[in-house]
Amino acid sequence: MQVLMKKRVVIVGMGFGGIHAARVLADQGLEIVLIDRNNYHLFQPLLYQVATAGLEQESIAYSVRAMARHWPGARFHLTEVNGFDLTARTVCTDQGLVPYDYLVVGAGSVTNYFGQSSVESHAFDLKELADGETLRNHILTAFERAVNETDPERRRALMTFVIVGGGPTGVEFAGALIELVNYVLTKDYPELRIATARVVLIEASDKLLSAMPAELQAYTLRKLRSMSVEVLLHNRVIDADAERVILADNTVIPTHTLFWSAGVKAAPLAATLGVETKTNGRSPVQPDLTLANHPEVFIIGDMAWLEQDGAPLPMTAPVAMQMGRYAGKAILAREKKSALPPFHYHDRGNMATIGRNAAVASAFGLNFHGYLAWLVWLLLHLYYLIGFRNRIVVMLNWVWYYWFHERQVRLITKRK
Amino acid sequence: MQVLMKKRVVIVGMGFGGIHAARVLADQGLEIVLIDRNNYHLFQPLLYQVATAGLEQESIAYSVRAMARHWPGARFHLTEVNGFDLTARTVCTDQGLVPYDYLVVGAGSVTNYFGQSSVESHAFDLKELADGETLRNHILTAFERAVNETDPERRRALMTFVIVGGGPTGVEFAGALIELVNYVLTKDYPELRIATARVVLIEASDKLLSAMPAELQAYTLRKLRSMSVEVLLHNRVIDADAERVILADNTVIPTHTLFWSAGVKAAPLAATLGVETKTNGRSPVQPDLTLANHPEVFIIGDMAWLEQDGAPLPMTAPVAMQMGRYAGKAILAREKKSALPPFHYHDRGNMATIGRNAAVASAFGLNFHGYLAWLVWLLLHLYYLIGFRNRIVVMLNWVWYYWFHERQVRLITKRK
Repeated sequence: MQVLMKKRVVIVGMGFGGIHAARVLADQGLEIVLIDRNNYHLFQPLLYQVATAGLEQESIAYSVRAMARHWPGARFHLTEVNGFDLTARTVCTDQGLVPYDYLVVGAGSVTNYFGQSSVESHAFDLKELADGETLRNHILTAFERAVNETDPERRRALMTFVIVGGGPTGVEFAGALIELVNYVLTKDYPELRIATARVVLIEASDKLLSAMPAELQAYTLRKLRSMSVEVLLHNRVIDADAERVILADNTVIPTHTLFWSAGVKAAPLAATLGVETKTNGRSPVQPDLTLANHPEVFIIGDMAWLEQDGAPLPMTAPVAMQMGRYAGKAILAREKKSALPPFHYHDRGNMATIGRNAAVASAFGLNFHGYLAWLVWLLLHLYYLIGFRNRIVVMLNWVWYYWFHERQVRLITKRK
Repeated sequence: MQVLMKKRVVIVGMGFGGIHAARVLADQGLEIVLIDRNNYHLFQPLLYQVATAGLEQESIAYSVRAMARHWPGARFHLTEVNGFDLTARTVCTDQGLVPYDYLVVGAGSVTNYFGQSSVESHAFDLKELADGETLRNHILTAFERAVNETDPERRRALMTFVIVGGGPTGVEFAGALIELVNYVLTKDYPELRIATARVVLIEASDKLLSAMPAELQAYTLRKLRSMSVEVLLHNRVIDADAERVILADNTVIPTHTLFWSAGVKAAPLAATLGVETKTNGRSPVQPDLTLANHPEVFIIGDMAWLEQDGAPLPMTAPVAMQMGRYAGKAILAREKKSALPPFHYHDRGNMATIGRNAAVASAFGLNFHGYLAWLVWLLLHLYYLIGFRNRIVVMLNWVWYYWFHERQVRLITKRK
C-alpha cells in the first residue's frame, strides 16, 4: 500500500506577499507551512500613525494563527529563518530544518542607511511593530523633557523633528506629526510655546512623492508648507549625533529626533539565496518569480528584483500582494501540469495622505487631491487592514481625531 | 504692592486616590502640581485582561495631561519622587525640589513576596502597565514553545500556569486564563492537545475571596472548578525556579509560568516619610488622613494605614478614591478656616468576575452571583474607566469576545 504524501509549500514571511500566497494555496490539497519570526501580520502602512499617537499598535497587527484557522492545510511556525539549502530543499530555522517541495520567500525589506553609520546609530525608522511605539515614546518624552529644560535653545532642539526622505512614509509622518503637535500637544503643554516646535522634511531630489504626477507633487509641497512643515528639497543629512544633524550644505539643525525614511533594501535573507543580488540587495527572479534554475523557489515582494517596462518594480505593498497571489496560483498550476503566463504587475495607482481632508491619489489616469483623495485613502486602508475588530478600532480612532482633534494614545510606555 | 501668591498643593501619584483629589481641588484658586513617573493613569483592575489577550494596553491607561486640561490651576510633572523634606516642605524628585503648602501622597503599592527571593525572581505580577503585556507575551510564547517541544513532560510544563493567591486578582486572572486557553487557544493550536493545559490556583487559607460572604466564596470555588481550574486550598508556594514550583506539602508542579497575587505592600516611598510604618509598610495616618505633626501632609490609598471598626482599611481602589476626595475637601475646608469630620470609608460592596456570565457581588447587604453580578461588574468597570474612547474600545473587545469567543490581542510583541 502506498501512502500518498501531500506536497509541502513553505512560505517564509507573513507580510503582504506571504498572506496573499497562503490565501490562494489554502484548501487545495497541499500542506502549507507558514513561517515568521513574529506571530502577527503587520499592516505597515499605518505604522506612522502609531508613532504619532493616533493608533494603538494592536490595531494594526493581526495574529497569523487567527488567519491560519481559515486556511485548511496550513500551520504556523514562529521561528527565525537563517538561510536555505536549495539543493536539499530545506529551510534552515532556529527550530531546525524544514523541508519543502515548493518555497515562497517574502521576507520584505529593512531600512537602508546607505552606509551612513552615524545616521544609522541615531535615527529612528518605522519597519517593525515595536518601532512605532518606540518612536511615539521618544516624541512624547522629548516634550516632557522640554517642559523641564531651562535653556531655550535646548528646549527648541527637543521640539525639533527632522524627517529624511520625501516618499510616502516621510510625507505621511511629517503631516501626522505636525498635526499632533499643533492640534493635540498644544493643549497638553500650555507651559511650552508649541509654535516654536519644528517639523523639518528633507528630500535629496527636487520633488516629494517621486512616483506621483507633477501636479500632485506640487500640491503636496504646498499643503505641507501651509501646515508649517519646513520642507527642504535638494538637501541631504550627512552626519548626526544625539543632539543635531548636519546637512550637505553645512546647515546644522539642533534636534533630538531624526527619522529616516530615505531608503529600503531587501531583507538580509536575500543574500543567503546564493544568487548575485541587484540594487538594494534584491534577488533577481525569472518572469514567473522563480529563482534561476530553481523553478520550485519563488521570491516575492520587496526582496524580488523584476524589471517591467524597463524599470524594476517598486518595493510596495501592492506589488507584494500581486506577487503573492501569482506565486500561489503558479504553484497550483504546476501541480495541474499547466503553467501561467509571466507575472505582470497591474499598477492600480498611488496615494498618500498629508493631513486632515488632504491626500493625493493617482489612479486610472486621473489625479485627485484634497478631501476626495483623503476619503478614498481612509476607505482603502480600512479595507486592506486585516481583522474586522481592527477596522472598527482604527475607524473609531480616526473619527475621534476628526471630531475632537484628539489622539488618545499619548502614552509613554516602558518595559522592565 | 503685595502680590498674593496662590497656595500650592502637590499631589504625588496619579492613581485612583491622586486623580480624585485633583478633581476636587481643581478650579478652586489653588496651584496644583501633579507628579507621577508615568504620563498616564492606569486602570489597574483590568490589567489582568491585558495579560490574557482580551484588551490592548492603551485602552486601560489615560494621559494625565488629557485629564489636567480640564482641571484649571493644575499642571503635570513627569518625574520620579525620591523622598520628602517635611520640614522644608519640599518633594525631592529627579528634576529637583518641588515646594508645597499642602502635600497629598498616593503612590500606591507594590507586590509583596514576603521575602521569598526565589519566588520573586521567577514570578510574574500585575502592578504596572508593562506587566500586562509582558505576561501576555510570556503566556503566548509558552504555547509557541510547546508546539516545538518534543518531550511530552516539558510540553505539559509549558502549558501549565500556576497562580498564587485566591483574592480578586488571582480569581479573575485564573478565570480569564482558562477561558483564553479553552475558548481561543484551542482553535489557534490544533497541533497541541489543549485539554492537557493546566491552570492551578493556590490559596494559603481555606477560602477564595476572603472579603466575600461564605455563600459567594463557595460559588466562586465551584464555578472555577467547573471551568477546570485546579484550585488548591491550604497550600503555599515555598520555592520556584524557571521550570517548576514547589509547594508547602512538597508537591512539585512543573511549570514555566508562576503568577503571584498573594500580597501587596505600600510603595517604598512610604518608608521615606519618617514615620514608623505598620504591617505591609503602610504609613499610619490621623483620622483626617494627615501625618502626625504634619497637618499639611495627607497620605491616601494603599500607602495609608487607618483602622476603622477595629481593622485596617483594605488596600483597594474604592478606599483610595474616597480618601482622595476627602483629602481634597479637607484642604479646601482648611483654606476656608473650617474642618471636616474624620474620614470614614463607606463600603459600597465587593465584586469579582470569574468568567462568562459569572461573577460575584456583595452590596447593600445582598449577595449576587452569576449573570446579574457579571453584568453589574461590566457596567461598573466601564463607568470607572477613564476616557470615553477607552470605554468604547473596551466594550467593543468585550462584545467581540462574548459573541465570537475571540480575543484579538494575541500578539507576541517585542522591543529592540
